[in-house]
Amino acid sequence: MSQNALTTMRDRAPLIHNITNYVAMNVAANVLLAAGASPAMLHAEEEAGEFAAVADALTVNIGTLSPAWVRGMNRAIAAANDKGTPWVLDPVAHFATPYRAAVAQDLMQLNPAILRGNASEILSLAGGVAGGKGADSGDSVRDAQSSAIALAQAKRCVVVITGPVDFVTDGTRIAEVSGGDPMMPKITALGCSLTALMGAYAAVLPALDAAVAALAHFAEAGLQAGQTARGPGSFQVAFLDALAAADEASLPDGKHVTWR
Amino acid sequence: MSQNALTTMRDRAPLIHNITNYVAMNVAANVLLAAGASPAMLHAEEEAGEFAAVADALTVNIGTLSPAWVRGMNRAIAAANDKGTPWVLDPVAHFATPYRAAVAQDLMQLNPAILRGNASEILSLAGGVAGGKGADSGDSVRDAQSSAIALAQAKRCVVVITGPVDFVTDGTRIAEVSGGDPMMPKITALGCSLTALMGAYAAVLPALDAAVAALAHFAEAGLQAGQTARGPGSFQVAFLDALAAADEASLPDGKHVTWR
Amino acid sequence: MSQNALTTMRDRAPLIHNITNYVAMNVAANVLLAAGASPAMLHAEEEAGEFAAVADALTVNIGTLSPAWVRGMNRAIAAANDKGTPWVLDPVAHFATPYRAAVAQDLMQLNPAILRGNASEILSLAGGVAGGKGADSGDSVRDAQSSAIALAQAKRCVVVITGPVDFVTDGTRIAEVSGGDPMMPKITALGCSLTALMGAYAAVLPALDAAVAALAHFAEAGLQAGQTARGPGSFQVAFLDALAAADEASLPDGKHVTWR
Repeated sequence: MSQNALTTMRDRAPLIHNITNYVAMNVAANVLLAAGASPAMLHAEEEAGEFAAVADALTVNIGTLSPAWVRGMNRAIAAANDKGTPWVLDPVAHFATPYRAAVAQDLMQLNPAILRGNASEILSLAGGVAGGKGADSGDSVRDAQSSAIALAQAKRCVVVITGPVDFVTDGTRIAEVSGGDPMMPKITALGCSLTALMGAYAAVLPALDAAVAALAHFAEAGLQAGQTARGPGSFQVAFLDALAAADEASLPDGKHVTWR
Repeated sequence: MSQNALTTMRDRAPLIHNITNYVAMNVAANVLLAAGASPAMLHAEEEAGEFAAVADALTVNIGTLSPAWVRGMNRAIAAANDKGTPWVLDPVAHFATPYRAAVAQDLMQLNPAILRGNASEILSLAGGVAGGKGADSGDSVRDAQSSAIALAQAKRCVVVITGPVDFVTDGTRIAEVSGGDPMMPKITALGCSLTALMGAYAAVLPALDAAVAALAHFAEAGLQAGQTARGPGSFQVAFLDALAAADEASLPDGKHVTWR
Repeated sequence: MSQNALTTMRDRAPLIHNITNYVAMNVAANVLLAAGASPAMLHAEEEAGEFAAVADALTVNIGTLSPAWVRGMNRAIAAANDKGTPWVLDPVAHFATPYRAAVAQDLMQLNPAILRGNASEILSLAGGVAGGKGADSGDSVRDAQSSAIALAQAKRCVVVITGPVDFVTDGTRIAEVSGGDPMMPKITALGCSLTALMGAYAAVLPALDAAVAALAHFAEAGLQAGQTARGPGSFQVAFLDALAAADEASLPDGKHVTWR
């Protein structure tokens, strides 16, 4: 019998190198610490490669990208790929401008272990026409499922669509994760922080299992937080508390998960 | 009878492009989400113009400016002006250094719909001598009122001085907004977040009404939060909850507002 | 009889110029405000020198450094040294990459009044081999004590090692500060925020007294927060509340402090 995913991650306390956006920096670091991982945020091309080479996983998020940061991302990804370290891509609102779209397409060629986005992001990364304008999705998870499967097969990576029910596929297997709370889209950077947490699980588990484990951890914490929150402020507080409180007993493997 | 301002904004859920400082990024995004708008933070000159052209409003804050960010601000403002999209200026502590003062003066020439600052910022932008050194005001709202009126007339924009009682003018009409809580100046980036919220209301209302509506929304949420907060930490949590909880019933148009 | 350290700092409400990392920006500003100081965050080389020259203290943290920011740090430090304004250095994870190590060594030559780090950071800055990989320490406070004393003597500055029991020395005198809560390392940027708070006390007290006073203020707030927190989310909220609530009665000089 294999060990519980959360316990495995927490026992290892993996060092996760995150190149993420300014909005998410603090939240993602606190999510990783609450979950049991060790976060590091640094981006300069002068050091991003050296650091990614010693980290246990790398996560890359283009939310507030600029050319200097993209150079750092490329250094870090090259080092991670060279070491066989898994890395996770979060192509925030990549369809919103030509610059952003081009950067996302370039990064997709660099073999991410996991790609995570909302329905609009996954749809348009696969060549479809997205309904979203900003960071929020304008499409449903169902609309993007065939795009996710096609992308996973073409890029040999795990693709995750997050939404009311999350969809995960490696191109062959499919899992859905339910739970969480309707208030979650009303809190900034939770999706970006989930990307960071996928890095933590990817450091200790195969990519498909890692994506599912991170989604289940978020689903459980979101459910717990929703029971006491009076609004988006108190939800954030309760969510971090619940991420830390989750354990093998409250979050056995498979909870919140349906394999299709 | 016209529709309630808060309901109008929330029904539209406008996409607000914010180029703001690193301290305020997360708070401003959460304030916009809690209030009912859709925030986007991006700044690179490679994309700021394209994005501002599709956003419903733009807000610009110079808190942690640098030349690269100022180039992005200029691109975004040019695109907004070209489309007739309203934009809001927050000239944080512009009097503190010659570089910052020059940038603020340049931005003021670009026709903001709303200018929001504390008394020291408005006084010195109008050519007066400010008593403040950092981001906190060293002058009273009353000291800056004639400067605000003169600026509003000269620049044909709405000028807002925030303080214990806020002062709003378009050069002709004057409104004052009271409420809030004495703890608010002890929480960083609330003023910057108010600037972002003015963008949300400016996307759906004329600038003078938008400024007043955003101030009233903050005044109401601050009053509510002050009733349960035990300090600046719990105030922030309760404030976000209260921004989200406000509705037509608790915040009818005109509440907290006195027209002079 | 000398005045209480906290009251002295709060009465003066010193303006603290912080050049810190993206993760810590918001937290450090809120910590300074809750404690009673006035924070300012700005970094551009175009203005960092002018601003540091009018601030009451400067703090420099290399967490998310890049060449442009390092140029701003150098301008600010030069201006502070020129005016005799104290500055505090936080060499976050400087051993993690050659670039970061070189920057930290350069900054150490510029006469900080206080150097604050965890055990791994102090050990390796003194030429030892550190056990840490990321921002978390891989060594114990005890392991780094002789390094701290040697560094303090060589650089004529106050050196602080933070940990379960903090260690402070100016090379001659030694103090230890206990208190706080075991949850504190699980919350991002608290150490960076402590560095900022040392700046606030250094603006009004000699460096050794300032470091001890900031540590005691954190120890007291951490103890208080630990009594009600249900996890890292609610701890952060209670911690800010407790920083603000502390006063002469709850935090007399010398509380939590042992002089060796």
